[in-house]
Amino acid sequence: MMVPGLPCLAWCRDYHRHTLARDLVAATIVTVMLIPQSLAYALLAGVPAQMGLYATVLPLVAYALLGSSRTLSVGPVAIISLMTATAVGEVVASTGADYITATIALALLSGLILLLMGLLRLGFLVNFLSHPVVAGFITASALVIALGQLPALFGVEAGGDNLLALSSSLLATAPAAHPWTLALGLLALGLLLLARRLVPALQALGVPSTAAQLLCKASPVLVVFITAALARWLAVEQAGVALVGEIPGGLPTLAIPLVLPELWRELLDSALLIAIIGYVESVSVGKTLAAKRRQRIDPNQELIGLGAANVTSALSGGIPVSGGFSRSVVNFDAGAATPAAGLFAALGMALAALYLTPYLYYLPKATLAAVILVAVFQLVDFSHLRRAWHYSRSDFVAIATTIALTLLLGVEVGVMCGVAASLLLHLYETSRPHLAVVGEVPGTEHFRNVERHQVVTHPGIISLRVDESLYFANAGYIEDAIYGRVAQQPGVRHVVLMCPAVNAIDLSALEVLESVNQRLAEAGVKLHLSEVKGPVMDCLGKTDFLSRLSGEVFLSQHQAVARLSDARPAQAQPLVGTFQAGESLP
Amino acid sequence: MMVPGLPCLAWCRDYHRHTLARDLVAATIVTVMLIPQSLAYALLAGVPAQMGLYATVLPLVAYALLGSSRTLSVGPVAIISLMTATAVGEVVASTGADYITATIALALLSGLILLLMGLLRLGFLVNFLSHPVVAGFITASALVIALGQLPALFGVEAGGDNLLALSSSLLATAPAAHPWTLALGLLALGLLLLARRLVPALQALGVPSTAAQLLCKASPVLVVFITAALARWLAVEQAGVALVGEIPGGLPTLAIPLVLPELWRELLDSALLIAIIGYVESVSVGKTLAAKRRQRIDPNQELIGLGAANVTSALSGGIPVSGGFSRSVVNFDAGAATPAAGLFAALGMALAALYLTPYLYYLPKATLAAVILVAVFQLVDFSHLRRAWHYSRSDFVAIATTIALTLLLGVEVGVMCGVAASLLLHLYETSRPHLAVVGEVPGTEHFRNVERHQVVTHPGIISLRVDESLYFANAGYIEDAIYGRVAQQPGVRHVVLMCPAVNAIDLSALEVLESVNQRLAEAGVKLHLSEVKGPVMDCLGKTDFLSRLSGEVFLSQHQAVARLSDARPAQAQPLVGTFQAGESLP
Repeated sequence: MMVPGLPCLAWCRDYHRHTLARDLVAATIVTVMLIPQSLAYALLAGVPAQMGLYATVLPLVAYALLGSSRTLSVGPVAIISLMTATAVGEVVASTGADYITATIALALLSGLILLLMGLLRLGFLVNFLSHPVVAGFITASALVIALGQLPALFGVEAGGDNLLALSSSLLATAPAAHPWTLALGLLALGLLLLARRLVPALQALGVPSTAAQLLCKASPVLVVFITAALARWLAVEQAGVALVGEIPGGLPTLAIPLVLPELWRELLDSALLIAIIGYVESVSVGKTLAAKRRQRIDPNQELIGLGAANVTSALSGGIPVSGGFSRSVVNFDAGAATPAAGLFAALGMALAALYLTPYLYYLPKATLAAVILVAVFQLVDFSHLRRAWHYSRSDFVAIATTIALTLLLGVEVGVMCGVAASLLLHLYETSRPHLAVVGEVPGTEHFRNVERHQVVTHPGIISLRVDESLYFANAGYIEDAIYGRVAQQPGVRHVVLMCPAVNAIDLSALEVLESVNQRLAEAGVKLHLSEVKGPVMDCLGKTDFLSRLSGEVFLSQHQAVARLSDARPAQAQPLVGTFQAGESLP
Repeated sequence: MMVPGLPCLAWCRDYHRHTLARDLVAATIVTVMLIPQSLAYALLAGVPAQMGLYATVLPLVAYALLGSSRTLSVGPVAIISLMTATAVGEVVASTGADYITATIALALLSGLILLLMGLLRLGFLVNFLSHPVVAGFITASALVIALGQLPALFGVEAGGDNLLALSSSLLATAPAAHPWTLALGLLALGLLLLARRLVPALQALGVPSTAAQLLCKASPVLVVFITAALARWLAVEQAGVALVGEIPGGLPTLAIPLVLPELWRELLDSALLIAIIGYVESVSVGKTLAAKRRQRIDPNQELIGLGAANVTSALSGGIPVSGGFSRSVVNFDAGAATPAAGLFAALGMALAALYLTPYLYYLPKATLAAVILVAVFQLVDFSHLRRAWHYSRSDFVAIATTIALTLLLGVEVGVMCGVAASLLLHLYETSRPHLAVVGEVPGTEHFRNVERHQVVTHPGIISLRVDESLYFANAGYIEDAIYGRVAQQPGVRHVVLMCPAVNAIDLSALEVLESVNQRLAEAGVKLHLSEVKGPVMDCLGKTDFLSRLSGEVFLSQHQAVARLSDARPAQAQPLVGTFQAGESLP
């Protein structure tokens, strides 16, 4: 049973030696992954490398105590670092704020937003981000990040936060590539890619599959030390290869970040976006892993865990953090049983910060670029786009919009437009609902679309099934469809709206129904309803609509037609003289 | 039959003497109303009075030829003038543009936007403005306009485009009210209010009801000439009463407005808003009147008619125009049979522009303020708010938001937030759909909510009816509800999702269904669907979901339960160990 508020109490209680062993193994492997990633993602965010290390100590402790996932590995992640660089870059340009101060402020603000959302139980808000849109956003961001590593790999100065700016800047500077930098970078890249190919080879040699895969995951840290040693031995610093250089050793010092109102105001939108994207990514990874072990994620507790992680990152001078996809999977596969694995990883990172930094002086920045390149390429996945193309055009448009705008206009515009596009497309579709004229399947009480089934209809009755809730955006469309249908069938005396799919009727739609009822009555046609759901009936009962309805409300369409079918086609006067021929029912 | 593109051809063809007489009478009365209103609304928009007159000649001709309503009276209207003043005021303050130039540019831009929307057949877009939101917006705007007339009535300098600014400015300046101005203003107001009370009195004296009401509608023009004559006779100009003063006589001269790219860019948002609000108001008035005579409004043709009216207003140096509510009703009641009434009214206004302006020199501005006050008070209507309170809380919140923000933050913010609120509330509601566990009504094939009806259920089967289309915003909610329900009923072997109200399943929801199917199968529970609609089935058929579904798809819930009900409660393993007690099905 998960204890709300402090989930760690739940797993602490029955912690035993076997669990400890599993957690220690997983923590070791995650620490080995985190060392190069934390440095690399700090550089990606545009801040000194040690800020990445600082984001891996207290935040891991905070999440282990407050988060609801047992295996999520929190820390710096690629996409959040890219979003940080974009947001801070803009704010620094517009306000002249200090880059590091602004980055820390961004982590603090994101953390506070997440905490606030958790306390207000606003976890449901992320439901409004459709999965395909998020998947498209991650793919496009990964491409932008990958392209953004090429300048460091080539040893040239180039930049830009979208595809076009990056590409043109790269094309202009690529001829001036720095040979030593490029050589070391390609070596690192080659080794990293080779490590992945080694998995089947090792398996063939009898190494257990899990062990082989974990060795592959640990390859980045090996590549870091190999290339750093090479760079020192070859003395490439004199040749102009960009190195990570002096990283201040020691544990992060705690400090309450300055509250600069103007800076906070400027950062607010970006902080909200980073909070939401980081949360959505974490929860989706966490949910997937939890489902495999039949555990459960509490969305609101997760907001609090991630919020606390970001706040503590800011307090210790770190960058914004989130749950990382690949590290969490490694943590899970390595057998992490409880969040204690996160506590041990934090300990490992603290030791790294204390004792490892001198050895990282000679680490070429090109190596970190290679680490990022290999990591983010796993995030590129166009399968959602292909799937949506076959399944639904509006999903496809939403994903394509997200990918295109993220690539062309940057991460913030991309994800916001993607979310807006998915919501607007959904609204557009519900504003033009499917309407079906139905008839009775002979020998049953079932009614089906006359265009799809052999059914019985009556000339005096129109049975119209509305396949959508009635609300302001579709009320006018449905009104027009009813009039159009009545105009096409002159002998009609009854219109029965079959409402099994009508889940709500809002005030605008009620007004339209009232006017339809009145206009049909004036033309000698009665309006009936059938199969109205309980909650809708409750709502209508609060108004005088039912008493003014010219017809009746039937429990089933079968009853409605049975009662009304003795009605012979009448000489009803035409409803409206000016209906146009093209206005058939969709 | 309406001729698309040039609706006037339809009514020209059978135009005869009787129709001519009716149109002439209506045109005369509308002209008499238009004279004071056009002057007053020009001042409300913040431009010289003659720009109101100019907006009543060519725009009426353009609409008569291109619009689809037979009785809509186009010209300056209160709310569009207020929105013009707000928009132009902001742009002038930020760019230093000339006020008159900006106003004309705004009319041109709105007109071009309307024409473009008409040509692209985007009339459906206005469906996304809910009626209650528009009604709330009109009420709040009318209050802002009414309050905005008080400074002119009191003869003081005060201003502001929202309730707070206006009130505080008024309170500060009211003690310095100008006695003569106030006296003339109150006289005008009294006469206008008296004229309305006269209707029953005249009827009592045997005057026909229609004639009495038309006389009341003509009262503003009488009040204009009475107060102008008084002002001249009492020589109040020397006493400091603000008069309309010199109005250049003669017809408007045609000129192509300057295209200033920066000005246009700044005005674009406001022009779009003015175009949409003007269009929505016009169409709703036009629809109401057309319905009474069994005529019809073509939304896209209406966009073209209103667009042409605004473009011609700009070409002749006028202000933005729209279909006015009260004038259209008067036009209709006076018997206007065809848009020729509009042509005659345009002729009347041309004559007024040519010959009447010298007589308007002494007209006190306070009289025009009184005319506006009386006109807009008819627009104040809180009945929607009351109705929504009883009917649906989300409609109420949308209307209250619109009214409050329009009053406090101005028209543009108010209407945009109102529209956003109504859309978001709709999305929020569909994200937490109604779900019902259903059972069979004994002796029938119908299934109803177990909480509302006496029905038969089976311990091994959960029949769950989902009362909403499945899409990204509610997929997670439904997933949680299914797991929660299964956890509560340990012996269950079959879950049947009853889908008569599921009108669509998007890609996100499909992915969730796939994962539900897999997780339930792992727990020994089969997932079935029933009563899936044709279009939804077509969509699912494009994927491999149906082949991977652990259960079956049944034509009806009755068939599903009949087939599955021999399934005895089994010792299915618990689905998830950590479900919490509070997680019951809503």
